[in-house]
Amino acid sequence: MTEETWDVVIVGAGLSGLSAAQTLRKRNGKLRILILEGKDRVGGRTVTQELLAAHGIDRWDMGGQWVGSTQTYVMDLIQEFGLEVYTQYTTGKKVHHVGGPRAKVRSSSTSIPALSTLVLLDLSQLVWKIDRLSSTVSVEDPMKTPNAQELDSMTLHSYIEKHAWTEEMKEEMGVCSRVVFGMEPNQMSFLYFLMYAAAAGGVLCLLESTPGSAQEFRVKGGTQQLSERLAQQIGWESVRLGKAVTAIWQDAEQAKVMTATHSYLCRAVIVTCPPHLAAKIHYQPALPIQREHLTQNMPVGHLMKFVITYQMAFWREKGFSGEIVARPSADCPLSITFDGTSPSGSAALVGFISGMQAYDWSSREDWALEEYSGGCPVNVMAPGLLTYYHPSLRTPCGRIHWAGTETATQWCGYMDGAIQSGQRAALEVLARLCPFTLTQEEQEAVQAAQNQNHESGPCQHIPSTSHLRRALILTTLIMATAVLLAQPQLCRDWIGQARQVVLRRFALW
Amino acid sequence: MTEETWDVVIVGAGLSGLSAAQTLRKRNGKLRILILEGKDRVGGRTVTQELLAAHGIDRWDMGGQWVGSTQTYVMDLIQEFGLEVYTQYTTGKKVHHVGGPRAKVRSSSTSIPALSTLVLLDLSQLVWKIDRLSSTVSVEDPMKTPNAQELDSMTLHSYIEKHAWTEEMKEEMGVCSRVVFGMEPNQMSFLYFLMYAAAAGGVLCLLESTPGSAQEFRVKGGTQQLSERLAQQIGWESVRLGKAVTAIWQDAEQAKVMTATHSYLCRAVIVTCPPHLAAKIHYQPALPIQREHLTQNMPVGHLMKFVITYQMAFWREKGFSGEIVARPSADCPLSITFDGTSPSGSAALVGFISGMQAYDWSSREDWALEEYSGGCPVNVMAPGLLTYYHPSLRTPCGRIHWAGTETATQWCGYMDGAIQSGQRAALEVLARLCPFTLTQEEQEAVQAAQNQNHESGPCQHIPSTSHLRRALILTTLIMATAVLLAQPQLCRDWIGQARQVVLRRFALW
Repeated sequence: MTEETWDVVIVGAGLSGLSAAQTLRKRNGKLRILILEGKDRVGGRTVTQELLAAHGIDRWDMGGQWVGSTQTYVMDLIQEFGLEVYTQYTTGKKVHHVGGPRAKVRSSSTSIPALSTLVLLDLSQLVWKIDRLSSTVSVEDPMKTPNAQELDSMTLHSYIEKHAWTEEMKEEMGVCSRVVFGMEPNQMSFLYFLMYAAAAGGVLCLLESTPGSAQEFRVKGGTQQLSERLAQQIGWESVRLGKAVTAIWQDAEQAKVMTATHSYLCRAVIVTCPPHLAAKIHYQPALPIQREHLTQNMPVGHLMKFVITYQMAFWREKGFSGEIVARPSADCPLSITFDGTSPSGSAALVGFISGMQAYDWSSREDWALEEYSGGCPVNVMAPGLLTYYHPSLRTPCGRIHWAGTETATQWCGYMDGAIQSGQRAALEVLARLCPFTLTQEEQEAVQAAQNQNHESGPCQHIPSTSHLRRALILTTLIMATAVLLAQPQLCRDWIGQARQVVLRRFALW
Repeated sequence: MTEETWDVVIVGAGLSGLSAAQTLRKRNGKLRILILEGKDRVGGRTVTQELLAAHGIDRWDMGGQWVGSTQTYVMDLIQEFGLEVYTQYTTGKKVHHVGGPRAKVRSSSTSIPALSTLVLLDLSQLVWKIDRLSSTVSVEDPMKTPNAQELDSMTLHSYIEKHAWTEEMKEEMGVCSRVVFGMEPNQMSFLYFLMYAAAAGGVLCLLESTPGSAQEFRVKGGTQQLSERLAQQIGWESVRLGKAVTAIWQDAEQAKVMTATHSYLCRAVIVTCPPHLAAKIHYQPALPIQREHLTQNMPVGHLMKFVITYQMAFWREKGFSGEIVARPSADCPLSITFDGTSPSGSAALVGFISGMQAYDWSSREDWALEEYSGGCPVNVMAPGLLTYYHPSLRTPCGRIHWAGTETATQWCGYMDGAIQSGQRAALEVLARLCPFTLTQEEQEAVQAAQNQNHESGPCQHIPSTSHLRRALILTTLIMATAVLLAQPQLCRDWIGQARQVVLRRFALW
């Protein structure tokens, strides 16, 4: 077995690993950096492919595709490489088909979703409640959230069952969970959901295509370019493709990163692959039990993406935006579609099959079957995990540092988070190998983050706020709604006023 | 790399793997069977060790130790090898210290736990409710359970929060969850808990030391003897220790099982290691996504066992049974203790540190740090898993068959379940390799089980039963309790009567 010596070995050539390498290289050009990647390409969960379209070959993102103006890390990288973004097309009527196969297909030409007034009120109150809770979450240290243990003890499903008024709203939240995480709401800790929303700036930011939201822009030429440009800047000779890491050993002197055929000695390792894949690497000495249990409890989602090209964007001509939100059924596997027309005008729709439906469709080829992806878009946490094992998400284990979008504190789960996490891990490595390359502030920040991780034990139970108060508010709201429904004529003015409030709230939906 | 050829390769020399080998050998003496084990011993999660005691060296079980009369598979094996069992010592007062460090230390010399009448009533109603739900669970196919999806969407914690009346009872259930699973109640699907209880014959069977319960008997000389005798019967030349399997490849012709240094060709493989370890093996072609997601969602518990030997069993002399149930705190890490005195009279207490407390204690050496255990006593399922991925638990993947106590349908999670699962997997392999060794009935049973697994898609939502009815019953009970508390003198007779009912219900506690 051949053996090479490097300063830093990075496992994974996605945005996180390549960003880590970029930061290391920028700060200290002398560091010998090697990136090992299991796949035969760079980009991780971003990949741009050529498809036949109306006017010949064009390019589409088959993985992560959207960026937004509040995603500062990815926007900076886009600017650095001189790439361009364009706004997601959302003009025109949106189709809504939730509530089962027999439910009415609704469409809305306004900016608010095609829901009844009651469901809109329900949406409003639920988003308000969730956003209020989400604003109390410390993304850096979720154990400090008030009632952390209680929130972590329930699934997202349990919360929705308790707090949504209407069955339609429960279904809407199911759609959101499937589309954002590739997971059903019953597979996820509610606290994890809150943390994820907090890292994005609020729950609506996850769902919308408005300025600052997750689906705001797309990148001309595709997002995989970011990884390709990074690899080019770092030097392709530092990137080895088709080299899956099987084991990482370490001792007081050094670390040894192994593939099936080679081993690489180094002083520090950055592991950037998703938690369930990091768990498959053989570590010696064994990782702390907290870290092992963490990765055993972070299942990856299941979201299948499709792109359909058309001769022309017929929906635009008919006044539709191309957005469909649907409850999947035997006849309709999709959860959501968007206009996917390319900047050069090749008409397309892009859509997702997610969560439970993907179960039936998974005999088709998808990322879940690709060994070094194993699912997408992101790993989430099962209940009861954040409050026990969260510090293990980022705490280095000896010479091993952890990155990847799941470890990010800004836009966790997105390309932006991947870059942030890579840069953060790079600073940790620099603090270890060559602290002189960091400013005093940066050194203190690395130190503070690591101390915080060490200090945080499992969360202690804090009694929850008054159930009575909640029950009173809820009862008042339900009674008000009942009056609304029972006295439609008397209450027409109320509805008009409520609608105005909702319209203002969702002006940019 | 040397290459050998066998008929069947079994991964893991615990009770499951060795029982599979025994069944294969009994049915067809010509089959060439190889068992590969990562550890340097047989027995898996059973291990018997020598400790210094009052009268010299004696032996204690450091892993699985209890068996019960309804555990027919393990009782048969004990009988086959001429081993003896003895009854768990439970005579005398039991100490109960739940409710926080400042709570009163209670003890009870009767057969019912030292709880207040109200908490006993609460225990009674909660166990009644859970048992009634548990009796509706199909262990073979949990998706057929009424309201399966709803039950699988909540954590055990969420159910307890909703249905327990008293804070004390919520704590009691926390203790139960920690002791039975090594897990906090917020880490587990409530449907999984119900299935686990159903496989044991009811929730009290998991908790008690009474006839038919999980803690009924211990095995003289220790439970690891079962695996040692099995290995002896099969032939030690068929068991290779220190051979951790790293990869399993298969094609239309054969399977290839690989360790770091060897590879073994065969016609069928039985993988018996716990799900999170089975997930670390590299499979080619990749396993179906359902199987991958299943093992990503089955975290293993964290239960640390200790044995303390004494000059004499002083607690017996003072009229205590040795049983302590405690709420762990900074001063008291333990959850539960039992009398652990050996059959030859070496005095000892055996106890457990579990769930969240084990977090703090895990820097000590324990099974969680041992690579080929990674935790104990059992893997459980996070919410939202049973109803999606359960069929993957036992469905063979090509030439690979799955065993291990987590796949059992009787006493899942116990030694009994390990043996049952091993025997079941052996029948599957025989049905493939030499169906003539099976009776017509056995062949049909194997076929039926596999068809059932294929037929079951993800569970469909069935609306839950009337919330109103539940609310009415609960309100009535709460009001009755309030009257009981407000009018102690008038209600003395009622209490007496209620106590009689409870005493009859828990006559064997």
